[in-house]
Amino acid sequence: MKILINLLLALLFMVGAYAQTITGFSPGEAQKQLVLESRFDAQLSTDNLDAWMEKMAARPHWVGTEAGADLARWMRGQFESWGYEARIETYQVLFPYPKIRLLELTEPTPFKAALTAVPVEGDPYTRQGDALLPSYNAFSRDGDVEAELVYVNYGVPKDYEELEKLGIDVKGKIVIAKYYGSWRGIKPKLAAEKGAIGCIIYSDPKDDGYYQGDVYPKGAFKNATGVQRGSVMDMPLYPGDVLTPGYAATADAKRLDREEAPTITRIPVLPISYADAEPLLEALKGPVAPDSWKGALPITYHIGPGPAKVRLKLEFEWKLQPAHNVIAILEGSEYPDQWVMRGNHHDAWVHGAADPVSGMVALMEEARAVGVLAKKGQRPKRTLVYCAWDAEEPGLIGSTEWVEDHLEELQQKAVAYINTDGNGRGFLEAGGSHSLQTMVSEVAASVPDPQTGVSVKERQAARNLTNGGDGAFALDALGSGSDYTPFIQHAGIASLNLGFGGESAGGEYHTIYDTYTHYKRFKDPDMSYGVALARTAGRITLRLANAEVLPLDFGPWHQTLSNYLKEVMKTSESMREDMLKHNKLIDKKAYLLSADPTKPRVTPTKKNEVPYLDFSPLQNALATLQNEVDALAAKDLESLSKPGKDALNVLLMQAEQQMISEEGLPRRPWYRHQIYAPGFYTGYGVKTLPGVREAIEQENWEEARQQIGKLAGTLERMRAYLIKINASIP
Amino acid sequence: MKILINLLLALLFMVGAYAQTITGFSPGEAQKQLVLESRFDAQLSTDNLDAWMEKMAARPHWVGTEAGADLARWMRGQFESWGYEARIETYQVLFPYPKIRLLELTEPTPFKAALTAVPVEGDPYTRQGDALLPSYNAFSRDGDVEAELVYVNYGVPKDYEELEKLGIDVKGKIVIAKYYGSWRGIKPKLAAEKGAIGCIIYSDPKDDGYYQGDVYPKGAFKNATGVQRGSVMDMPLYPGDVLTPGYAATADAKRLDREEAPTITRIPVLPISYADAEPLLEALKGPVAPDSWKGALPITYHIGPGPAKVRLKLEFEWKLQPAHNVIAILEGSEYPDQWVMRGNHHDAWVHGAADPVSGMVALMEEARAVGVLAKKGQRPKRTLVYCAWDAEEPGLIGSTEWVEDHLEELQQKAVAYINTDGNGRGFLEAGGSHSLQTMVSEVAASVPDPQTGVSVKERQAARNLTNGGDGAFALDALGSGSDYTPFIQHAGIASLNLGFGGESAGGEYHTIYDTYTHYKRFKDPDMSYGVALARTAGRITLRLANAEVLPLDFGPWHQTLSNYLKEVMKTSESMREDMLKHNKLIDKKAYLLSADPTKPRVTPTKKNEVPYLDFSPLQNALATLQNEVDALAAKDLESLSKPGKDALNVLLMQAEQQMISEEGLPRRPWYRHQIYAPGFYTGYGVKTLPGVREAIEQENWEEARQQIGKLAGTLERMRAYLIKINASIP
Repeated sequence: MKILINLLLALLFMVGAYAQTITGFSPGEAQKQLVLESRFDAQLSTDNLDAWMEKMAARPHWVGTEAGADLARWMRGQFESWGYEARIETYQVLFPYPKIRLLELTEPTPFKAALTAVPVEGDPYTRQGDALLPSYNAFSRDGDVEAELVYVNYGVPKDYEELEKLGIDVKGKIVIAKYYGSWRGIKPKLAAEKGAIGCIIYSDPKDDGYYQGDVYPKGAFKNATGVQRGSVMDMPLYPGDVLTPGYAATADAKRLDREEAPTITRIPVLPISYADAEPLLEALKGPVAPDSWKGALPITYHIGPGPAKVRLKLEFEWKLQPAHNVIAILEGSEYPDQWVMRGNHHDAWVHGAADPVSGMVALMEEARAVGVLAKKGQRPKRTLVYCAWDAEEPGLIGSTEWVEDHLEELQQKAVAYINTDGNGRGFLEAGGSHSLQTMVSEVAASVPDPQTGVSVKERQAARNLTNGGDGAFALDALGSGSDYTPFIQHAGIASLNLGFGGESAGGEYHTIYDTYTHYKRFKDPDMSYGVALARTAGRITLRLANAEVLPLDFGPWHQTLSNYLKEVMKTSESMREDMLKHNKLIDKKAYLLSADPTKPRVTPTKKNEVPYLDFSPLQNALATLQNEVDALAAKDLESLSKPGKDALNVLLMQAEQQMISEEGLPRRPWYRHQIYAPGFYTGYGVKTLPGVREAIEQENWEEARQQIGKLAGTLERMRAYLIKINASIP
Repeated sequence: MKILINLLLALLFMVGAYAQTITGFSPGEAQKQLVLESRFDAQLSTDNLDAWMEKMAARPHWVGTEAGADLARWMRGQFESWGYEARIETYQVLFPYPKIRLLELTEPTPFKAALTAVPVEGDPYTRQGDALLPSYNAFSRDGDVEAELVYVNYGVPKDYEELEKLGIDVKGKIVIAKYYGSWRGIKPKLAAEKGAIGCIIYSDPKDDGYYQGDVYPKGAFKNATGVQRGSVMDMPLYPGDVLTPGYAATADAKRLDREEAPTITRIPVLPISYADAEPLLEALKGPVAPDSWKGALPITYHIGPGPAKVRLKLEFEWKLQPAHNVIAILEGSEYPDQWVMRGNHHDAWVHGAADPVSGMVALMEEARAVGVLAKKGQRPKRTLVYCAWDAEEPGLIGSTEWVEDHLEELQQKAVAYINTDGNGRGFLEAGGSHSLQTMVSEVAASVPDPQTGVSVKERQAARNLTNGGDGAFALDALGSGSDYTPFIQHAGIASLNLGFGGESAGGEYHTIYDTYTHYKRFKDPDMSYGVALARTAGRITLRLANAEVLPLDFGPWHQTLSNYLKEVMKTSESMREDMLKHNKLIDKKAYLLSADPTKPRVTPTKKNEVPYLDFSPLQNALATLQNEVDALAAKDLESLSKPGKDALNVLLMQAEQQMISEEGLPRRPWYRHQIYAPGFYTGYGVKTLPGVREAIEQENWEEARQQIGKLAGTLERMRAYLIKINASIP
C-alpha cells in the first residue's frame, strides 16, 4: 500500500514537473530536456551507491596511501567503462605524517594523554589498528614545548577580548581551545598571534559528544575517545600545496623552503578527545569561565593560567606525496570547448564513508547515468568534466593544484563548477554564485524529497518557514571548506556546492568512526538522499550542458549584493552605536561600579571612534548596475538566432570572472573574488564583500575607504560587462 | 591609608546627604531626620551581626524545635533589653516531619538513593548527624508509588506543551523535574494535574552545582550530595497553616481534616541531590531532550518514559507544632496607633546562616540602634513593630497566622510593612508597593555601598546600565516567597522587601551547608552588607515613623500600572500574532514537512482564535486616575497645618487597601490585591494585574473580560479615594 502511494505521489510529481518552464530553454527544448531528466532519474540506483561506498570506505585512504592510489585507478576504470575519457593527473604535494605525538600534564599531577580512539563493538572497521591514521592536525609545525595551560573557549577573536578584560595573557602559555566556533585553523593562528607557544584543540561533549545524543556505538555521537583530525594550514591565506603558492605542484616545480612556507602553523597544535582533555581542564584554576564558554564535562570550567602545566611534543615526517586527481571527460556534442565541471574529493582522513565517499558515490552514479544516456545517443551538448580530487582533507590540495595548473584554459572554457562533498539525510543545502540561483531553484523544485514526496525545494522552504524565515529559496554564499574554493575564489568560475543534511547529525567527522557501518546506521541508511543528490546535481549539470542560453540570472545576484551592502552598512552603524554606548558607560563609571571588586577584571577603556564611511560609491554602482540587470532581464533571449545565442553564451561564461581582481584581497592575493571569500579570522565561514567588510570589522578605516573604492570599481567593471552583453543582443 | 580614604569618602558622602530634601519632611524636619539617621548609622556594628549569626546559626532550628523556641525567647530578651515591649505570640500549626523516605530505581538496574548530604572538611556544623533535618519537601502527601520515570525538565506548563508535541503522557508515571524555572511547589502541582503519581525534584549541576563554580567545601556551590529542602504546599492558593485557611491557627481554632486540606500536594514529592539523580536519568531512554532541557550531568538527557522504573515511598509524622512569633514594640511618641512594621523570619530549614539569619541579625541590629536612640530621647513618632516570624520556611505560616489573627487592627493601624530575609554581598534588591518608590529611591541614594563608596542606588544603577537598562531606580513588583505576602496580598498593607545580593551566589540554599562557616567564606565575610541592609531598612523605618506627611507618591505608582497595562495588552497582541503565524504554518504544512519522519512527533494542530479584548475600561480608568494623581502631586502638603497633615496621614495609610477586593482573585479568594499576586503557575514569580493577565495567559477570554471590568472598578475606587484625599486638602 505504501509503495502504491509513493508511486502515485511520484506520478503526480512528474506531471507537475512536465508543466515546468526552465530557464535557458525554449519550450520545445525544455520539453526534451525534461524527458531526458526523467530518463536520467530512471538510471539511478541506490544499490550502486551502497556497494561503492562499502568498497571505497573499506580501507583508510588519505593522500599518499596505496589504498588511495588504488581507488583513483579503480575510479578511472569505472569512468572509462561508462564511456568517459579518463586520466589521473598527479601532483607532488607536501604532506606531514605524525611520527611523535606526546601530550602530558606535568603539573600538578602527571597525566599522559592516550591520543587513541578505541575500536567499538559492532564496527569492524574501527579495529584496523595501525592502518588508521593517528589523530593529528596536518600542517602543525614540529615542536616540543612545555608551559602553563590557559583555556581560551573556541580561541576566536572575541574570546581573546574576554581574556583581555580578565587580565589574562596567553604569552608564553599553551592554550586549550574547543573545536567549533570557527574553522579549526583559526585557533593556532590566533593563539600564535597572541604569543602562545602551543595549542591543543579538543572536542567538548557539549558541541560534539554525549550532550548531543547517545555516543558511538550506542548512538551516532562522539564517544569520549574520538578525535577529530583536520588540517590547520592557514587556508584563508591560500589553500593547496604549502610549498607552491599560486602555481601547480608539478614534480619539477620550484618549491618554497618548508621553513618559509607561510601557511604552516607558527606553533605546534594537536587535537585530542574529551577523555584526554578532562584531566587537563580539571587541573586549571583561576577565574571560572563565563557561561558561554562552559562545556558539558562534569567539572567547573576555569580559565587558568595554570597551575596545570602541559608538555606538547610533535614531530612529523615531512614528505612529498603524490596527489592523484581523477579527471573524466565526456566531450560535448555541440560545444566541446565549453566545460561543465563537476567534482567531489576522494581522499579521506580515515575511511571517510560520509566524508567524502557519500558525495563521491552520488557523483559516480550521476556520471554513470549520463554515460548510459550518451551511449543511447543523448550526449550532452557541452563537455562534462567529472573530477575526483585527492588531498582535499589536508587543504584542498588536489583541486587547488589542478586549478592553478589549468588556470588559463579553465577561465576560457569553464561554464561552471558544481561541487559536492559529504551527504546525508534531510534538507537540500545549496550555496554558490547568485547568478545561478534561479536555475538551482528550478531544479530544486523538480527533485522529490525521498521522505515526504514534496520537492526538495518545498521541504527546504518548510524548514525555513518554521525557523521564522519567509520560505524563499536562496543560495548561501560560499566561504571555503571544500574544492569549490580554487574555482570560485581564485579562478572566478561560477560555482555551486550541494548536499543534503540536517537529519543525520553525528560525531564521526574526521574520526575513525566515519565508517560504512556508522553511515548505514545513522546517515542515509537506504542511500535515498545519495540518489536525491545525484538527481539534483545531475539535473544542474545537464541543464548547464544543454541550455540554449546559459541559465544565468543577474536579478537575484543584484538583489543579494544589495542585501550584503545593507548588512555591511548596518555593521558599521552598529559598531558606532556600540562604541557610543560603551563610551557613555565608561563616562558614567558603570563598568567600574557594577564590577565585583573581589574578582580580577580589567576596567574597560574607551573604544576608538567609529567614523561615518562614505558608502555612496557602492550605492551608486549598484543603482546603475540595476539598469543593466533590468535591461538584460527584459530581453527576449529565446528568440535569438542560434549564432546569437552562441555568442551570448561565450560572454555569459565569463561574467563571474568580472568579479575577481588581479591583485586579490589585502594581504592574501590568492583570493581574488570581490564578493565572496572565507573570513581571515573565521576560516571556512564566508565574508561577503570581503575587502570592505573585513576592513570595517578590523576597524581599519583607511583600508575600508580604499576597499569601497575598489569594490565600486569591480561593480563598475561588471556593469560595463553587462552593457557589452546587452549591446550584443539585437 | 585605606581607612583614611574611606573616612574621607564617607565624609564627602554625608555632606552630600545633608543637602538632601526628603519626601514627607519640611526642610527643618528633614535636617533633624538626617542628623538622626547619621546617629543611627553610628550605632551599627558589624561585630554584633557576626556574633549573633554565629549564635543563631549554631544549631538547626526549624519550627517546633527546642532550638527554635530557645532563639525566640532569646530574641524576646534582646528586644526587651533594647527598650522594647516584647512578647511571643504562638500558633499551633501543622508541620510534617519525615519518618520514611525511600527512593529506588527498580529497573533496569537496582539503585537506592542515599538521600543524605555528606559532612565536609572544615565545616563542623555539617557534622551534626541526626540533628540535621532530613531532606524532604514539606507538605508532600504520604505515598508509596512505583512507575516508569519521565524527565519533564523544570516541570512548568511549557515543558508539558513540549511533551505533548512529542506524544509523551505522564499519566500514571513518576516525573523527575529540575529545581528552578518556577517555584518548587508548581512542579508536583502540575505533575498531579497531568496525571503523574509521584514527583522527584533534583538540583541539576547546571543550575546549581559545578557548572556554576567550585563546589563546597572547595567553593560556594552545591556539591553532588547537597539537597535543597523546601515547602511544596500550594501557596499560590493560600499560604500559612494548611488546616486554617484565612483565619488564625490558635490552639482552639476549628481545623480542616488533613485529608481535605487543599494546599497539601496530591502526589508524593521528594527532593534529591544530583548524585542521586544521575543514575535515574542515565537509565532513561526515549527521545533525547531538547537542548534547553539539558543539564550539566555527563550523560545524554533522554525523556523516557522508562525503561527506568522507580519506587517512591514517603511517610510523614503529621503534628501540630508551636510557631513562635516574636513581636517587639516601641510605642510612638506622637502617633502610637500608627504602626511601622518591620519583619524577618527566624526559623530555618537547617542552620540557616544566610536564610534567614543574615537578614534577622541586620533587623536586630537596626532595632537595637533605634532603641539606643529612643533611650537618648529620640523615640520615633509612630509606633515601631519589629517581628521575628517563625515557620516561614514551610509556608509563610508564622506571619500569615499573625496577620489573619490581627487583620482588623492591622488594616486600621499599619502604615507599612518592611520585610527582609537572607542577605549577601552586592546590589540593593528592592521590591514593593510602588507608592513607596520615591521614598525608597531617596533612601537608596543616602546609603553608601560598602565596597565602592558610592550610594547603593548609584551602584544598582551602574549594574542596570551595563545590563542595557536606563539606570532609573524602580521597585520590583512583589510576588511571594517571604513574609510580606500576607501583609500586601491579603491585608492590603503597603509593603517592601529589601536585601542585598548578586555577588554572593552559592549552592547552600536550604541545605546543611547554609552555615556560619559557609557564610563567612562566601557571602558577606565582614558583614558590611548586613550593616548596609540595617542602614537601608532602618532609614526607611525611621522616615516612615517620623514623616510629617507619609511619603507616598502616586506618580511612579500610576506610571508603573500604565506600564503593566501596556504589557498585558502586548501579551494579548503577541498571542494573537503567534496564533496567526502558527496557523499559517499549519496551512502550509510547514511543521509536517520540516519534521524528521524518523522521530516521533505529534504534528501540531491549529491554535484557537485569540479575540481582540476591549481594554478601554482600563485605559479610561488610568486616564482619569492620572488627573487625581497630578492634582495631589500639585498640592503643597508641607504648608498644611499639623491637624491637616494628621488627617491626611490617616487617609494615606489606607490607600493601598483600596487595591484589594473582598472576593479576591478567581479560584483563590485569599489573594485579594488586584495589582500584585504570585502566579498561579509560577509560584513566587509575580503576576501584575493578576486577574486580567492570568485569564489571558490561560486563554480564558470570558474571565479576561470579567476581570477587566473588575480591575477597572478597583481603579475607579482608587480614583474616588484620591478625590477624597484631594478634597481633604485645602
